[in-house]
Amino acid sequence: MSDLPAPLAITLGDPAGIGPEVILGAWTRLRAERRAPPAFVVGGPELLRRSAEALRIDCPIVPIADPAEAMFACAAGLPVMAGVDGPLNPGKPSADGARLALASLQWGVKFAISGVASGLVTAPIAKSALVAVGWDYPGQTEFLADACGRPYRDAVMMLAGPSLRTVPLTVHVALAEVPQLISAGLVIHKARIVAASLRRDFGIAEPRLAVAALNPHAGEGGQFGDEDDRIIAPAIAALQAEGIDAVGPVPGDALFTPRARATYDAALCMYHDQALIPLKALEFDEGVNVTLGLPIIRTSPDHGTAFDIAGQGKADPGAMAAAIRMAADMAHKRG
Amino acid sequence: MSDLPAPLAITLGDPAGIGPEVILGAWTRLRAERRAPPAFVVGGPELLRRSAEALRIDCPIVPIADPAEAMFACAAGLPVMAGVDGPLNPGKPSADGARLALASLQWGVKFAISGVASGLVTAPIAKSALVAVGWDYPGQTEFLADACGRPYRDAVMMLAGPSLRTVPLTVHVALAEVPQLISAGLVIHKARIVAASLRRDFGIAEPRLAVAALNPHAGEGGQFGDEDDRIIAPAIAALQAEGIDAVGPVPGDALFTPRARATYDAALCMYHDQALIPLKALEFDEGVNVTLGLPIIRTSPDHGTAFDIAGQGKADPGAMAAAIRMAADMAHKRG
Repeated sequence: MSDLPAPLAITLGDPAGIGPEVILGAWTRLRAERRAPPAFVVGGPELLRRSAEALRIDCPIVPIADPAEAMFACAAGLPVMAGVDGPLNPGKPSADGARLALASLQWGVKFAISGVASGLVTAPIAKSALVAVGWDYPGQTEFLADACGRPYRDAVMMLAGPSLRTVPLTVHVALAEVPQLISAGLVIHKARIVAASLRRDFGIAEPRLAVAALNPHAGEGGQFGDEDDRIIAPAIAALQAEGIDAVGPVPGDALFTPRARATYDAALCMYHDQALIPLKALEFDEGVNVTLGLPIIRTSPDHGTAFDIAGQGKADPGAMAAAIRMAADMAHKRG
Repeated sequence: MSDLPAPLAITLGDPAGIGPEVILGAWTRLRAERRAPPAFVVGGPELLRRSAEALRIDCPIVPIADPAEAMFACAAGLPVMAGVDGPLNPGKPSADGARLALASLQWGVKFAISGVASGLVTAPIAKSALVAVGWDYPGQTEFLADACGRPYRDAVMMLAGPSLRTVPLTVHVALAEVPQLISAGLVIHKARIVAASLRRDFGIAEPRLAVAALNPHAGEGGQFGDEDDRIIAPAIAALQAEGIDAVGPVPGDALFTPRARATYDAALCMYHDQALIPLKALEFDEGVNVTLGLPIIRTSPDHGTAFDIAGQGKADPGAMAAAIRMAADMAHKRG
């Protein structure tokens, strides 16, 4: 058994959101395309069976007692860990649903850290629902960093689509706070993690990084903002000195043209919208959120719980399918 | 004669930049596609003849003494105003070149204001070269506002491509200054100008505006920044109250997905990169810079002088061709 790769663990996410249905849809699509990797869902066999039935998704559910069974259960359908389950109430978030989402996440992380799972794919949670049952993290990424015994700043969010990878250096902060949060240390720390992960997890021997400017036209020689010359350019020089192929600061609007995108493997951006606007404009239905810098592999679809359309069969499973494929490819590259 | 539409005036831009060659390339392309509107270049007949010769562009130059001759000269080639000219030195900006660019712009504006030209298409200038010969404006747009006797704040920059129009409410300022520059008055003032222009110049009877949020997730209920709730949302409510179809604040990353783009005619953005990143990612070679809110029609290609590639035949004339077509269409809509 030890020579077989371990399966991926897929968490349920909030059961009242679109998590269950996009898992079912993604798995069915990947199976039909013969691209489904060995994987199992962490909990919810009855819930998933009912969701498949309600939405008429032809996806047999195979309850398993142990992740090790997943490798063989895959032949018969979608393997789902038994023992953790709940009722199906799409569009109606509840404390019980939040507890189920949390149990799925906690078990999934344990499997990934212990190596029983080769990686973790997380369906979307509702932070406010989890906080109401005692959870105390800004998001799943920080929870994962903590579970892995790493500081939050080591967990680097990358958004990845078929033709673009972006990394926001600051994420959920007011735009007014961004300039003071950008430091040479932050740029260098995150760039090192991104370069190392592109090598190890994406099989890119000599990763090329492009670093976005904070200000329009990179400040045009200090005329509108000096952070690009004073902070970002020296950070890039330091990265180059240690052998990391980094260029910039590149004015934000010049960084995402078709020609520019062909010149780098990942773009480091200074703030949320600078990274997410081009990703969602170009790769909306296939955007994957990847957490770099942790000992475990972790991906998730780049969308939320979407309670308003849950249970209606409207949710596009494309991003979940892309997240599953990307985690499998990363696990394979890591070997 | 008075029933004929007036021709467009195309300025030379800095003669050491790619202006002359993209004018020749755009005109030749539009002629071949039978989409060339009546137009003339403001100066540079000998300079353009040499450029066409050097780059082997088959574009006969027809010197004219008066814009009124343009309508008929078009049949024979590209009409170019005689009397204003200079030598061809691609890639070598000079004081003489800057003076020629300025003369072309000054004449062009006069023709547009007097109605001798139906609109103005401006090739790129180099601001630093113009400042060195005594020019004193932040850019061509402010020069045009002044020439039209309008305050700068009435001249609204819109970036337009085949599938997206964006308007940055702040432009060439440091990102750190953006939050304090955003006011309800600014949003309302610019939105009114955009809505009026979409009606008058673009023939959209009931224009739909989408207003971007300043902060990620529109601040998520004030958790990261309160400007969206405190400033932008009330401005949108005020616009709706006066009958302007405006929605938002829409989180920046949600505003440019293919589905979202289909729901509005123009997106009002809070800062330069928020407007230009999606435009250049999606419509790079056809981006047109349109000045709204002035009595004259004015468009320009959304690129610079590119001195580094001038005279080498590498410049893509697509944006200039799109700028010429858009000015002609706007003049036609205005009637």
